[in-house]
Amino acid sequence: MHMQTATAHMESATFSEAWTRLIDQFQQIRQQSERYCEPLTIEDYGLQAIVETSPAKWHLAHTTWFFETFILRPYMQGYQAFNPHYEYLFNSYYNGIGAQFPRGKRGLLSRPGVEEIYQYRAYVNQALLAFMERAGDAHSKTVMQRVTLGLHHELQHQELFFTDLKYNFFCNPLYPAYQDFTGSWLENELASTLNWISYEGGLSQIGCNAKAKDFNFDDFIYDNESPQHQVFLTPFRLASRAVTNAEYLEFIEDGGYQNPNLWLSDGWTQVQTHQWHHPLYWQQTDHGWQEFTLYGLQTLDPARSICHLSAYEADAFARWAGARLPTEFEWEFAARQQALQGHFVAKADWHPGSAREEPGLSQLFGSVWEWTSSGYSPYPGFSPAAGAVGEYNGKFMCNQLVLRGGSCVSDLRQLRPSYRNFFYPPDRWQFSGLRLAQHGESL
Amino acid sequence: MHMQTATAHMESATFSEAWTRLIDQFQQIRQQSERYCEPLTIEDYGLQAIVETSPAKWHLAHTTWFFETFILRPYMQGYQAFNPHYEYLFNSYYNGIGAQFPRGKRGLLSRPGVEEIYQYRAYVNQALLAFMERAGDAHSKTVMQRVTLGLHHELQHQELFFTDLKYNFFCNPLYPAYQDFTGSWLENELASTLNWISYEGGLSQIGCNAKAKDFNFDDFIYDNESPQHQVFLTPFRLASRAVTNAEYLEFIEDGGYQNPNLWLSDGWTQVQTHQWHHPLYWQQTDHGWQEFTLYGLQTLDPARSICHLSAYEADAFARWAGARLPTEFEWEFAARQQALQGHFVAKADWHPGSAREEPGLSQLFGSVWEWTSSGYSPYPGFSPAAGAVGEYNGKFMCNQLVLRGGSCVSDLRQLRPSYRNFFYPPDRWQFSGLRLAQHGESL
Amino acid sequence: MHMQTATAHMESATFSEAWTRLIDQFQQIRQQSERYCEPLTIEDYGLQAIVETSPAKWHLAHTTWFFETFILRPYMQGYQAFNPHYEYLFNSYYNGIGAQFPRGKRGLLSRPGVEEIYQYRAYVNQALLAFMERAGDAHSKTVMQRVTLGLHHELQHQELFFTDLKYNFFCNPLYPAYQDFTGSWLENELASTLNWISYEGGLSQIGCNAKAKDFNFDDFIYDNESPQHQVFLTPFRLASRAVTNAEYLEFIEDGGYQNPNLWLSDGWTQVQTHQWHHPLYWQQTDHGWQEFTLYGLQTLDPARSICHLSAYEADAFARWAGARLPTEFEWEFAARQQALQGHFVAKADWHPGSAREEPGLSQLFGSVWEWTSSGYSPYPGFSPAAGAVGEYNGKFMCNQLVLRGGSCVSDLRQLRPSYRNFFYPPDRWQFSGLRLAQHGESL
Amino acid sequence: MHMQTATAHMESATFSEAWTRLIDQFQQIRQQSERYCEPLTIEDYGLQAIVETSPAKWHLAHTTWFFETFILRPYMQGYQAFNPHYEYLFNSYYNGIGAQFPRGKRGLLSRPGVEEIYQYRAYVNQALLAFMERAGDAHSKTVMQRVTLGLHHELQHQELFFTDLKYNFFCNPLYPAYQDFTGSWLENELASTLNWISYEGGLSQIGCNAKAKDFNFDDFIYDNESPQHQVFLTPFRLASRAVTNAEYLEFIEDGGYQNPNLWLSDGWTQVQTHQWHHPLYWQQTDHGWQEFTLYGLQTLDPARSICHLSAYEADAFARWAGARLPTEFEWEFAARQQALQGHFVAKADWHPGSAREEPGLSQLFGSVWEWTSSGYSPYPGFSPAAGAVGEYNGKFMCNQLVLRGGSCVSDLRQLRPSYRNFFYPPDRWQFSGLRLAQHGESL
Repeated sequence: MHMQTATAHMESATFSEAWTRLIDQFQQIRQQSERYCEPLTIEDYGLQAIVETSPAKWHLAHTTWFFETFILRPYMQGYQAFNPHYEYLFNSYYNGIGAQFPRGKRGLLSRPGVEEIYQYRAYVNQALLAFMERAGDAHSKTVMQRVTLGLHHELQHQELFFTDLKYNFFCNPLYPAYQDFTGSWLENELASTLNWISYEGGLSQIGCNAKAKDFNFDDFIYDNESPQHQVFLTPFRLASRAVTNAEYLEFIEDGGYQNPNLWLSDGWTQVQTHQWHHPLYWQQTDHGWQEFTLYGLQTLDPARSICHLSAYEADAFARWAGARLPTEFEWEFAARQQALQGHFVAKADWHPGSAREEPGLSQLFGSVWEWTSSGYSPYPGFSPAAGAVGEYNGKFMCNQLVLRGGSCVSDLRQLRPSYRNFFYPPDRWQFSGLRLAQHGESL
Repeated sequence: MHMQTATAHMESATFSEAWTRLIDQFQQIRQQSERYCEPLTIEDYGLQAIVETSPAKWHLAHTTWFFETFILRPYMQGYQAFNPHYEYLFNSYYNGIGAQFPRGKRGLLSRPGVEEIYQYRAYVNQALLAFMERAGDAHSKTVMQRVTLGLHHELQHQELFFTDLKYNFFCNPLYPAYQDFTGSWLENELASTLNWISYEGGLSQIGCNAKAKDFNFDDFIYDNESPQHQVFLTPFRLASRAVTNAEYLEFIEDGGYQNPNLWLSDGWTQVQTHQWHHPLYWQQTDHGWQEFTLYGLQTLDPARSICHLSAYEADAFARWAGARLPTEFEWEFAARQQALQGHFVAKADWHPGSAREEPGLSQLFGSVWEWTSSGYSPYPGFSPAAGAVGEYNGKFMCNQLVLRGGSCVSDLRQLRPSYRNFFYPPDRWQFSGLRLAQHGESL
Repeated sequence: MHMQTATAHMESATFSEAWTRLIDQFQQIRQQSERYCEPLTIEDYGLQAIVETSPAKWHLAHTTWFFETFILRPYMQGYQAFNPHYEYLFNSYYNGIGAQFPRGKRGLLSRPGVEEIYQYRAYVNQALLAFMERAGDAHSKTVMQRVTLGLHHELQHQELFFTDLKYNFFCNPLYPAYQDFTGSWLENELASTLNWISYEGGLSQIGCNAKAKDFNFDDFIYDNESPQHQVFLTPFRLASRAVTNAEYLEFIEDGGYQNPNLWLSDGWTQVQTHQWHHPLYWQQTDHGWQEFTLYGLQTLDPARSICHLSAYEADAFARWAGARLPTEFEWEFAARQQALQGHFVAKADWHPGSAREEPGLSQLFGSVWEWTSSGYSPYPGFSPAAGAVGEYNGKFMCNQLVLRGGSCVSDLRQLRPSYRNFFYPPDRWQFSGLRLAQHGESL
Repeated sequence: MHMQTATAHMESATFSEAWTRLIDQFQQIRQQSERYCEPLTIEDYGLQAIVETSPAKWHLAHTTWFFETFILRPYMQGYQAFNPHYEYLFNSYYNGIGAQFPRGKRGLLSRPGVEEIYQYRAYVNQALLAFMERAGDAHSKTVMQRVTLGLHHELQHQELFFTDLKYNFFCNPLYPAYQDFTGSWLENELASTLNWISYEGGLSQIGCNAKAKDFNFDDFIYDNESPQHQVFLTPFRLASRAVTNAEYLEFIEDGGYQNPNLWLSDGWTQVQTHQWHHPLYWQQTDHGWQEFTLYGLQTLDPARSICHLSAYEADAFARWAGARLPTEFEWEFAARQQALQGHFVAKADWHPGSAREEPGLSQLFGSVWEWTSSGYSPYPGFSPAAGAVGEYNGKFMCNQLVLRGGSCVSDLRQLRPSYRNFFYPPDRWQFSGLRLAQHGESL
């Protein structure tokens, strides 16, 4: 009994700190979503060029819907929904909650307007903060877990805000800039030398187990990162940095897009069907190669990391270079030995730069997401959460590839060595690039 | 000589009056476009649900582009374009001017914003008025003709503003209303009795010839209405009014959408491919049939005229009713004997009502466009204007059917007995209904 | 009474002659279908490259089905169907009979095999001849009418046999020939001079009325050619012959396929979507232009008539040439003054040749079908036959254009000045070409 | 030296035996392809219903092309190709050889006919046998390897012959049978009890290394099975037999096809888009469930193994059953402990039966291919062969899932525990079923 009380007390102290930390994060992250929207005009908020690139307004509403749907409605007594139609309008893909407004038509919702969405956010923020302050009830732990999940969810949508907006702006021949760039676009430095780092491999721990106290914001992991398990790795090598524009340009100039032998069969079909000749945002102009960025059209900078590649392009480039994509396990194995630092969204520099000359692996986190050759599948013993929340990750475990690391528009708080991002091989609208790998030899 | 001078003088007086009249119309019509937009939110201006339904903002810009492109640029010395990119952005389909921004992506132009488009309108209005006041130069007649054309063009786009907005709003499950409806939706009156009016036919004059002084705003006709020519008509009958919702409902309840024998072959394919069971905006709910209108969802009113039918539905209904669609020549022949009056946009009542009990043909103009069985083809001797302006009508003379009469959102000034509207048989987003016809017997 | 008896007697004599004539035609035409198939391998019989081009085997079966379905089943007492599944398998589009095996999958019916289809033909032929010989019953006239219809129907399918086979062979890169060509492919003669023939127009009789004794094989007309009615024609001119390959080549070399101003809007979309650069069967090779024919690949012969054009190409060529397509009424008006002669299937020369130097219009019938600008619509007072037979023509009266005249694979017996063929504007697999027209002046 | 001579001698003996064995297999397997075609009509040989299901004739030609292209042309001096056009016509997907006739149009090649293809086969067989008998030259080993590869290739196409033919026949509403079934369709025996077999897992050897003497027909492996490498497996359980029709029917009757929570997201999209309600060949009739088989339509037998499932259906069923699909590594680990026996093509029974009551795993090989959850990716250190032969497997390592085991139409000689079959998740035309797996606990 005595022991238990002590533990309970300690736990309670920890709990209270965690609670404070969570409220703090809640306020910061919720504000951050709105801050990112500041450069937008009212008209910009509604853009949706393709089914994948949701309007900024929809991101603002859906992340709010998440808190309302998974916390306020089920747990806060007497909660009055802001607008009962929103349950349908802003549900993304949770069949357990109900039917969804078609994903490809989000850009057609001129009503509710931008102002009303901000009111919705304020209303839910206020309700949730009030609810969190009345902590201590039976559901506190669940609420903490779900608020934590909701915040990590919102960080993911902040990243999508940037990538979706970039694509949507790109469809306007005026090439609007999210922000003006000041300074010199071409990085003075050359890209650092590409070195190969060798790894012995062997039996490795991959993934994480959810902590008992997973209500702690900073200990959060997604279900798809668990359970922790062993994977046997044969010796391999990783390139010291991501591939650069200059290197990719060489591939293009060597006829990479015309040579079927370099491509996966499905990739070659894609190249021919869509007449791909270069990465998504590149343009060959009278003034040489240019690249559309969140700063509008810019001269292609050879030193910066290549981005907006499909997995097919990344794979073809690697084959051309006599290398291959890493597996997600090789990547994670290497990443566990690195500090979690890099070029993230907090730098407010919305395009990947070039790698610094430094020992070991650089650019592992941030800058560009790195395609791996690993299909996105469940780890051994994986089981999604019960109920609609369980749809978050598990039902997508087919047809997609894992990307690792993060990008220049990822938030540091959302990333970990075990974090698994996933997209379809043809997808190009993320800041997706690659790091080369090769098979190694036993040392 | 003397005579010529007198004529010149008279002409000059007429010219000057026409000039004044035109400036007056210019101001009125240009303002009217903007007035129609008043109920919109900024977000509403950008909606484009399908390739056919352009954003309100685009209509405002394109009608302005028309004046800039066909008058100011070629004829006003020293004119500075408001923004050189607009030539491409707001060109609809004039290959003679240059390439066009893809029609289906107009909703993706968040920039230029609504405010800038209004500035564009003001800029062009001002330039054009200034230019018109400096009349008397070599191009005056051409300018008058083109301003007149530009105004009729703008009246057409005002109509499209309503039909496009209606469709775009319909894709929002909140079913926004353009305006609130006040009063009682269900018309007290029953629909008037349907009588058959008989016509002897014979050799008839169809179409109009452009007047020598076609710079007169009120004498305007489109090139596709000319030349006037003779058509021989066999005896026929026309229904005294348009088909009503009640009558169409009977067709539905009689299994009209399930019976292939009633349909044209292409129509039946359409019905099955798109699973049509009722007109575009109808919905069967727990509270009976409802209809989406510019006033939002409303109870289906049996007495009002049916609208938003494809030609296939109009044709199938007519066959079911033991009748047929009229030809455009029968329609015009009858219309020449009627006063040009009806339910037009000036009434500010954005939905067709019911026919009054009155002698002869009612609802011939306004209310709903009436599908005819006539393919849209050139009249004998038709020749389009030289240059890009000649693309206005002629190049669409294939695969479309002619509709006659006008709708509740047409402007009276754009209509005439000889006016030919045209859409593809599957199109349903116009206020399109039908009037029954039958073959008659020689009296 | 007396009079009536005399008439009855006369009628009876005529009837008996007509009966004999019909049996004769039945045997000749049924055999002809099979004779045309002689050069085929068993494998060739099943080819279907696109939904429009049915297998030869299907044509043989469907034409037989027609006699079985519309005569033997309803009228011949005790008739046992050859195979009850055939009702479904070989129904083309008669909803009044029942559901149909999907048109695009006819090539997938390896069973029943070729041999069985010939047995089916023999079985139905025998039954029908036996039935016809027992004439005199209550249904005799109906039977005569339907046998007549069935034979004209089979003549149409004989033409489709050639055009479909040609397309299906074209999809084989070995370019199989239906027959070998003997002699010299390039016609010695140049094309005749193109002269313009002028017509005053005025009120003209168009179409035919079905004869009272329409059981007479040679008096047959389709319902879509009736009723006869008056059409008023303004003065016009027709070219003395069809357009040649040489003339069309000039259009190509003048950039015709690159100039949007020459094209109907829908035509230009087609050109760009499908990357059309020349007529369907043309190929530019190292040895100059070649053309795929029923004799395999052949050098393009400048003197021969151009064929396998869509209506869009025909229309664009005419515009380029400062002319237009004729209307179907102009064509018929001129054709009524011509002898019904030309290059038909009986010549057993499966490609259009060149026009002879001769007074007046040459090549009006046979050689190539001539696109007109007339939408395929009902004549005033048109009413299709009752029942499923009424689906023959009427339900296609939308979205298609009328072609007139006939081609080198048409049978003379199926043609008349009033005969209306119809295809969709993009269709190119018929022997379709054009004759230029222009507006004329009152003489 | 002495040692080397001895080894050379021994090798030579072995080599000679291997040579004899190979010639023997060559004759047997080449004849077998033709024997399988015996029940076909000439018309059946050409069927291709969808892009995936090639005509029987094409399989006969392509397997012959393989020997001609990869052996005779490069290595046999003075070899004259049977027909130079075949290089293009019968190339499947080898870009290293040249362009390919489009896959979806193989059914359009009526020429060359069936007879000519048999002549082609005889010609190549004769040339190859003559060539093989002149062994001993510099290329002997390469030739042996390639003949071996060509024979395994032909075994794969023999399996596709059956699965493609089944699908192609299914599109004929007469439901032709490949053979008549004699005896009683419903298996007397009930399906055996489903037991769970537990495996401890741990570090396991997966895959095989190519033998030095890989010219030995029986030692053959594909490149995608190598290199052998270690995989760490956590404890797991496998079901003792494949899932039965009865079990799958329960899933259907429990609303499995209506419940999105059971499906992968892409699977659910597939279900809705294509309106899937049951496996590919099932039909609900007035007489209960029926299944199309190579014996035509048959009553659904509850005891037999379910087949023709997509991976989505297999996965949804497993989730419904509280289980999951195995990984390919779990499967191979278990399979290495089993005898390579089962229901293969040699049994000449063209439909999977039911499992016998027996200890351990039954039906592991043969009967139905078993979907795994493993994406088809390269093993660590994988490198494809140089040249066009290297396109055999490697370029398909994306977007597909691995299936293991074999089916009732697989040849025993083509299978091994390490054999990896692969199809896209939506594919259903193979004999594809599943075996349930679960996570186990450390013993």
